[in-house]
Amino acid sequence: MTRERLVVVGADAGGMTAASQTRRRRGADELEIVAVDRGRHASYSACGIPYWVGGTVSSVDDLVTRTVEEFRKRDIEVRLRTEAVGLELDAREVIVRNLDGGGESRLGFDQLVLGSGAVPVRPEIPGVNAPGVFGVQTLDDGEAVRAAVAADGARRAVVVGGGYIGLEMAEAFVRRGLEVTVVEAAAQPMSTLDPDVGVMVAEAIAGLGITLHRAEPVTAIATGQDGRVRAVVTAAREIPADVVVLGLGVRPNTALARDAGVKIGVTGGVVTDARMRTVSHDGVWAAGDCVETIDRVSRRPVSVPLGTHANKQGRVVGINLGGGYATFPGVVGTAMTKVCDLEVARTGLREADAERAGFRFVTATVKSTTRAGYYPDTKPITTKLIAEKRSGRLLGAQIVGREGAAKRIDVLATALWNEMTVEEIAGLDLSYAPPFAPVWDPVLIAARKAWEAVELDVADWYRAHPR
Amino acid sequence: MTRERLVVVGADAGGMTAASQTRRRRGADELEIVAVDRGRHASYSACGIPYWVGGTVSSVDDLVTRTVEEFRKRDIEVRLRTEAVGLELDAREVIVRNLDGGGESRLGFDQLVLGSGAVPVRPEIPGVNAPGVFGVQTLDDGEAVRAAVAADGARRAVVVGGGYIGLEMAEAFVRRGLEVTVVEAAAQPMSTLDPDVGVMVAEAIAGLGITLHRAEPVTAIATGQDGRVRAVVTAAREIPADVVVLGLGVRPNTALARDAGVKIGVTGGVVTDARMRTVSHDGVWAAGDCVETIDRVSRRPVSVPLGTHANKQGRVVGINLGGGYATFPGVVGTAMTKVCDLEVARTGLREADAERAGFRFVTATVKSTTRAGYYPDTKPITTKLIAEKRSGRLLGAQIVGREGAAKRIDVLATALWNEMTVEEIAGLDLSYAPPFAPVWDPVLIAARKAWEAVELDVADWYRAHPR
Repeated sequence: MTRERLVVVGADAGGMTAASQTRRRRGADELEIVAVDRGRHASYSACGIPYWVGGTVSSVDDLVTRTVEEFRKRDIEVRLRTEAVGLELDAREVIVRNLDGGGESRLGFDQLVLGSGAVPVRPEIPGVNAPGVFGVQTLDDGEAVRAAVAADGARRAVVVGGGYIGLEMAEAFVRRGLEVTVVEAAAQPMSTLDPDVGVMVAEAIAGLGITLHRAEPVTAIATGQDGRVRAVVTAAREIPADVVVLGLGVRPNTALARDAGVKIGVTGGVVTDARMRTVSHDGVWAAGDCVETIDRVSRRPVSVPLGTHANKQGRVVGINLGGGYATFPGVVGTAMTKVCDLEVARTGLREADAERAGFRFVTATVKSTTRAGYYPDTKPITTKLIAEKRSGRLLGAQIVGREGAAKRIDVLATALWNEMTVEEIAGLDLSYAPPFAPVWDPVLIAARKAWEAVELDVADWYRAHPR
Repeated sequence: MTRERLVVVGADAGGMTAASQTRRRRGADELEIVAVDRGRHASYSACGIPYWVGGTVSSVDDLVTRTVEEFRKRDIEVRLRTEAVGLELDAREVIVRNLDGGGESRLGFDQLVLGSGAVPVRPEIPGVNAPGVFGVQTLDDGEAVRAAVAADGARRAVVVGGGYIGLEMAEAFVRRGLEVTVVEAAAQPMSTLDPDVGVMVAEAIAGLGITLHRAEPVTAIATGQDGRVRAVVTAAREIPADVVVLGLGVRPNTALARDAGVKIGVTGGVVTDARMRTVSHDGVWAAGDCVETIDRVSRRPVSVPLGTHANKQGRVVGINLGGGYATFPGVVGTAMTKVCDLEVARTGLREADAERAGFRFVTATVKSTTRAGYYPDTKPITTKLIAEKRSGRLLGAQIVGREGAAKRIDVLATALWNEMTVEEIAGLDLSYAPPFAPVWDPVLIAARKAWEAVELDVADWYRAHPR
């Protein structure tokens, strides 16, 4: 019997979880597993890069989940600095290039997992490729930013884009003692939040010693005579910069798959079935930032680049490749971040998303505290809920606060998952003790207020439409 | 038109929430509201007493949610030091006694809310009523314990009972610099947890400088020549004590209601319908620690003395009394506490409860961390799940850990509420960022393991029963 070969393109969360999970179920005697990756590291926590740059995490090794040697011990071969440059799906071959001068070769496969991740969005503006301008996607990127911060005279950092990665990098630069400016094209930072919640983030950022310019699209990166970055330019100003980081989000890295005829969805991600098989090619699977999945609230396709989904999807691929059965159930859009002691979290639809999906809704925003009001170190927490009119079904939630605030989003994510109404949520038996929550947890208060808003809306309607 | 009168017996969480909520919907011109209570305070946080004794909360005023004057401004009359000593439900009268020598009188009502709370369990052992032995139920109790701790020579505290209140009082005494011993009759402290989780609490307690004696029922309280407590006595030892606190739990305070013929359930609590009306008497309502409710997992009646339920039930009473419509949906048995930096939480059924309710189940216990493993200050968290065989439905969960551990129980409480299977829970879109969670949140890992246990059990069964 000939051994089959599984090839994994992209040796990070999605691909390597698939590889490991497959190996647990199928021995090396029947299945060879080879992963290729253009980078210098396998299986690392990209989400940890800002904390490494900021010095919160001291060693890059801490971010590496598993080394090539560790994979080898489990009979998984990882070839780094090896870029997949072509897929010949009918011939069942991947064309790979050794980036250290080893030339191109062909790697046959029986099963293929696409785990090619995402690529940072780079705006087409002058100077964007100048030395000193960095994306933050790979450990190599992180190393480059660290070197730039450590360089003589590095004093001013500018972050382009006030989303998750942008704000996390802003914190990192604050920790490294730099003057930090965040430039955001939209009216408020954190465009994954509603603007009225984003404005709370904006206000809090000022208190952290970060300068924030809003509604200022970057028009150019100015460079000095040495060709290096000198300033970030907007219509309103020129912001001197020694280090610039692009935090404009990412998009699925699917160029290779697209060229090979793999079906790509409206969001730009690879389309798979519930078991994470590409819909276009037998024996070709996909997991992680490169795939498209379903938002369970709007029931529309989305691409959500997040390690937690990549891991879950990789596990689903591995179970299925190993002869088991598993499906990926979609997402509700939960995400969180922290900037210094400011905590931000969201799940489900924003108002704009809810409108686009065809929902009518009410909102409720409440301010409360993370512990009993009288308990020391109680912190502020603002919770906003979006609920469907009439049914009262929860559609989305956003939280801004300090220590202990953000993780409360998980209750709301679980409620969304179960299509609970805000009335039901208000009745939930959530844990209570003075060091952990007020007697009415902020989540319950917000649900109560949203429910009242749902009822008032009904009453208003009947008042306006007398029988 | 004559004003109706609402009388509330017991001016704490359940009763006063009912009063306030009613007042929001019905003005003083149509409804008079009078609350009576034997104590010296209205509407306070009994759960906060240990933190006041320990000095974490500095003033008793912080624990008082609303004073008599504040209620008066909202047209709610509160008569303190006024004990309800009889209910004449057919005559629609409450017999009240003024505890400051004002004699007895009759208070007529149209509607009555029973919010008589709970009474601490006092074992029938010699010396249990000696000076220096305290229950911890009211602010007056808290004041008495504070005075005892502050007295000259107070050096050794013994807590009888290692449940929530017992361990919280143990922390309070540690904070006040006393030598603290906890004496527990059962094999492990925290009998609301499974013994295998309770043992983790027991081990952690030792590290906090608290002496714990397990499986040692207290047989007597020894007193000195002055009649004051001298020691706590078990079969194994005599533990010298200057202050003794009883933390043996509470039971519904329903003597008055029972005498008046109000229907009392198997748990000793007042039986109500979904709207919190007593099932035995029209116009008589009940809320808080004195009532019986339904456990949504076992579908059996339970009495759960907890401020969060009292508030919710009081609100339901008030909405209904105010002409609206609301129901109390029952509980899933969520509870939490902390002892110094040890966090403990539970929800749903313990193994023994699950057996009693007729379920067959598997369990999974996993150790993880509260943040990404590489992130500073990540803390240990152990999560145990109990899942029904075959269906995989979650039946219960328990968490022991350090900072950031306990509040995760809310996700599992919400999952229980929705009768989710552990397979579904493992797919939940929970929030992830390195400062808040590993890429697989501990809840997800535990659910995955429990799901594997469910599948293995099925496989074992079929292996043992070949076709």
